Order: sequence, then C-alpha cells, then structure tokens
Amino acid sequence: MHEIPVYSTDLTWIALRLEGLEETIIYHLIERIQFCNNSAVYEAGKSGFEGEASRSLLDIRLMYHESMDARFGRFEVPEERPFNANLPHVMRKVNLPDYPIHLEDFDTVNLTNKIKQTYIAILPVICRSGDDGQYGSSVEHDVYTLQAISRRIHYGALFVAESKYITDPGRFDVLIDSNDTDKIMEALTRKEVEEKIIRRIREKVEIAQSKANRDIRILIDPETIVGFYRDTIIPLTKEGELLYLLNRKR
Amino acid sequence: MHEIPVYSTDLTWIALRLEGLEETIIYHLIERIQFCNNSAVYEAGKSGFEGEASRSLLDIRLMYHESMDARFGRFEVPEERPFNANLPHVMRKVNLPDYPIHLEDFDTVNLTNKIKQTYIAILPVICRSGDDGQYGSSVEHDVYTLQAISRRIHYGALFVAESKYITDPGRFDVLIDSNDTDKIMEALTRKEVEEKIIRRIREKVEIAQSKANRDIRILIDPETIVGFYRDTIIPLTKEGELLYLLNRKR
Repeated sequence: MHEIPVYSTDLTWIALRLEGLEETIIYHLIERIQFCNNSAVYEAGKSGFEGEASRSLLDIRLMYHESMDARFGRFEVPEERPFNANLPHVMRKVNLPDYPIHLEDFDTVNLTNKIKQTYIAILPVICRSGDDGQYGSSVEHDVYTLQAISRRIHYGALFVAESKYITDPGRFDVLIDSNDTDKIMEALTRKEVEEKIIRRIREKVEIAQSKANRDIRILIDPETIVGFYRDTIIPLTKEGELLYLLNRKR
Repeated sequence: MHEIPVYSTDLTWIALRLEGLEETIIYHLIERIQFCNNSAVYEAGKSGFEGEASRSLLDIRLMYHESMDARFGRFEVPEERPFNANLPHVMRKVNLPDYPIHLEDFDTVNLTNKIKQTYIAILPVICRSGDDGQYGSSVEHDVYTLQAISRRIHYGALFVAESKYITDPGRFDVLIDSNDTDKIMEALTRKEVEEKIIRRIREKVEIAQSKANRDIRILIDPETIVGFYRDTIIPLTKEGELLYLLNRKR
C-alpha cells in the first residue's frame, strides 16, 4: 500500500481515488434499499415536521445535516459541494492539502441539483415499492448516499478535468475559447476507462452481497447500480469536467 | 425473502435482525479505517472548535449529530439510545410498530458510555497510527460506526432478554428477585450462538474486502473485528440483557 496523495493531477492517482469511493457508494446504496421506497419523504409538504409546511422530509434532513457539516468544515474541501446554499460558517480550522484546482468559486462546479433528481428517480427501481413507515432511516441513508455520490462526481469533475487540461493546455484553450462543448466532451471521453469502471462496479456489488443472509438482507440487482453509474454518475462527472474547464481561471 | 417483523419475541427473528446489522457495522468500520487513528480528535480541549474549550471533537460531533437525530425522532425507537442527555424534543410523529419491551424508561438500558470507551480504545489497533489531518471525516465516520454498534447492542439487549424471559418467567423472576446476576448471566449465555456469530463475522469481513484494490483501500484484519465482537459487542449486549431484566416492569 503506497501513500497516495489526496490531491494530484496524475490520472493514475485520481483514478485510484475514484475507485476507492466506489465501495462507499455501493455500501450506502445497499443500506438504503433495506427500506422501502417511501415516496412520501420526497414530496414537498408531506414531511410532518413541525414548522415545515413546504419542504420534503429529505430536504429538511439535508438542510440539517449540511448545516452541521458546514460548521465542521466539510465544504471547505473542493470536492464536497453542498446541496443547500446559505449554510452556516465553519467553526474550526480545516487542514487542507494543496490542491491543483483553478476556480474562483468551487460552486461554479456544483451538480447537486441533478444528483438529487437522478437519485430520487432511481429509488423506485432499486427499492421495494410501498411504504414501511421507516421515514427517518430512509432520509438518513439518503443523505449519506447523496454525499457519497456527490463526492465521487465532484472529485472526478475537478481533478480529472485539470489533469487532462495540463496534458495539452493550448488545445484546450482553443476549444474553451470557441465554446466548442462537443469537442471538449470528445476530448474528455475515454470509453475504455468507462467500461472498466462498469465491469468493476458489477463485480463489487456481487461480492458485497455474496455472504448476505437473504432471509433478512434485501439484495440489490447489480445491473441497477451499473446502470446508475453508466447513465448518471459517469455523465454527470463529465458534465462537471466541462463546467470546470469553462470556468477555469487562466 | 419473508417479511420479518421489526420487533418480535421470536428468537429466530431477533437473531436475523441482529445478523442484518452486522454488515452495517462492518461497512462503517472499514470506512473509518481509511483514515489514520487521529487521536487528537478524542482529546478534550483539542477540538479547535469555536466556543468549545473543553469537549473533544468527537464529543462535539456526537452532540450536533444527536441533536439533529433527536428532532427527527431517532430516540423514540427503543433500540436507539443516545450518547448524550438533554437532547432537543422530537419535531415529527414517528411511526413505531408495537414493541414487546417492558421498561419505564428505555434509558435504563443505555450502554453508550461503555460503547464509546471501548470503541475509542480499539481505534489504535484497527487504524494506521499517526495523524493524516482528516479530523472532520474521522469523527463523521466515528458517529456512524458508534450508532451502528449501539443499535446492535441495544436491540440485542432488549429483545433477546425479553424473548428469554418469556420462555420461563417464573424462573427469571426468582433470579431477578434474589438479584443473582451470575445465575442470570448464565441463563442468558448460549456459547454456541456466540461462536456462530464470530465465524460469520470473520467470513463477512473477508468477503467485504476481497475485491478491494489494495493500492487505494486500506484493509482491516478480520481478527480485529472478530475480537471486537467477542470482547465488546457480545459482552455489552449481555450486560444490557441483564440490565433489562433487572429493570423490567412486572
């Protein structure tokens, strides 16, 4: 085991970091699907929470959780982007390693709205339908899962984009100046890497569940997580890479 | 996959519920050990948190997290016992299935102090020594792990004790009235079940890590989790069973 830098522009290190985040996403998804879909917790006005007439229970939980996290310094970290604006200020000094990211404001690359939308949309596919009344546990696990997905997407967006940029700044500057998003996306795409990730995800989900007792643990179909990676996590990461390059300070 | 009742006095159901909580504990421990021991976060007065001169960073995080959880209703649930007293009141109606627990106050069975102590004591064994500066992430994962361990211990304590009690109330009443804790503990102990749990934990930890990329994921020695189950989780569960019986309403 080497000491891998937290931040780097070396694509090998970055890929390893991204790979290390896969277990976290998979674990959290498996924990979430132990509960039913519980669609009421995503509906505005149905939270049953005192003084909260309009937000969904998930949105209330996200606000509480991120308010706490903001005080502890989570969002000082480039790849930790909040789902909420106007959070409390940080109450401790955060040790941040040097990072090779060139943005005025980290939140110019913030894909949390789309992450939340796509995540809520996948729940009826991966969870048992219906309502088991376990609303508090459902939104608790939703927050953990959303944060894990968000970290993976934003880490990839920022660091992969920067590492690709510095391989050929002249070429990227031309594409950025001409706002040629198709060509930029083409330059960012590596199909064979995406396919390798997909295969690895499938295998990890299968292994993670292989010793679970089916009398008590609910299993997830690996293909649904694979599909979520392929259709949501990877495309949103690339969308973030594009946003990064278009907003990169020179 | 059957529908298993959340609460029951059937030892088969209870054992399955307890088994289902094992993955959660294992996942969280694996996530925590991705960071160094970071012993400073457990030392009073070293939090660096504004306005917090005396508590450790973990204790501050636990207080923030449990204050949020209390508002969402976590501690209305019998097996969710808080590490803090004087938490805010619940702000939503919690759907709680009927539970066969006979206590005036759930917190007469609250082992959180011992859980926190033994957990902090195991960290230097399971984490890489030293300090990686990732204090916020360390205490975040500590809280998740502590809550998972606590849920397992308190669920086991309450429901296993009640299920054993009702197999022979007369015998238990005599032991309880004579305050014969040794005999009660003897009546609560099933060595062969404990050994089965231990074997299963070892296997689950091995499997959980079998596809991890060792270049980026730090692995945990299954024997350390096995030891933690054997020397801490199982004994504290039995201590909780004893407390339950001694405080059981008749």
